[in-house]
Amino acid sequence: MKVINLKEKFNLFSEHWSPKIIGELNGQHVKIAKIKGEFVWHDHANEDELFLIIKGTLKIEFRDRTLELKEGELAIVPRGVEHNPVAEEEVWLMLFEPINTKHTGDVKHELTVEKYEEI
Amino acid sequence: MKVINLKEKFNLFSEHWSPKIIGELNGQHVKIAKIKGEFVWHDHANEDELFLIIKGTLKIEFRDRTLELKEGELAIVPRGVEHNPVAEEEVWLMLFEPINTKHTGDVKHELTVEKYEEI
Repeated sequence: MKVINLKEKFNLFSEHWSPKIIGELNGQHVKIAKIKGEFVWHDHANEDELFLIIKGTLKIEFRDRTLELKEGELAIVPRGVEHNPVAEEEVWLMLFEPINTKHTGDVKHELTVEKYEEI
Repeated sequence: MKVINLKEKFNLFSEHWSPKIIGELNGQHVKIAKIKGEFVWHDHANEDELFLIIKGTLKIEFRDRTLELKEGELAIVPRGVEHNPVAEEEVWLMLFEPINTKHTGDVKHELTVEKYEEI
């Protein structure tokens, strides 16, 4: 058991679109990521995904609407729903999702990370 | 899909030791709670539990040590580990845990909530 300080963890890396694992419970991973720019349209066939904004403003584009999330706000994207995160300025976010979740879903993309680093 | 603003959700209730459900994903609940004072020693036989501090300072007593968590810090209490949350001043926290988790574990106590309200 230990105390995990989010800001300290965010200060350990600077790269974008490369989620880091900071915890695991009940078959789920807690990850943090810094993102900037546009990601890639994808969905997750079997995993719901939670986004909690720690810093900045994240837009999550869906095929029929766009959600705008600010610091202290969260959204849950259900499995099977196509989405595309967009960050005009750098965003720090926390993710909660099953341990086998790929951040680009079934889409292979140059941004796809095959193995997430634990920090 | 919707944006969930944590501060707005916290402003919907004032009672202590009564977690509210604000989201569900992958068989897990996202809950928020306001707590003050001492809770009750308990464990969860089958559930790991995440505490993320939104406001205030939470002490989590274990049998062999005490963790102190401040705003922006989190800890994961593994299944089977006895713990007792203590908040000298009011603490706002977010919880992640399986949907069938009782906040007092197998301990029946006057603080035990049988059914969690969704807000």
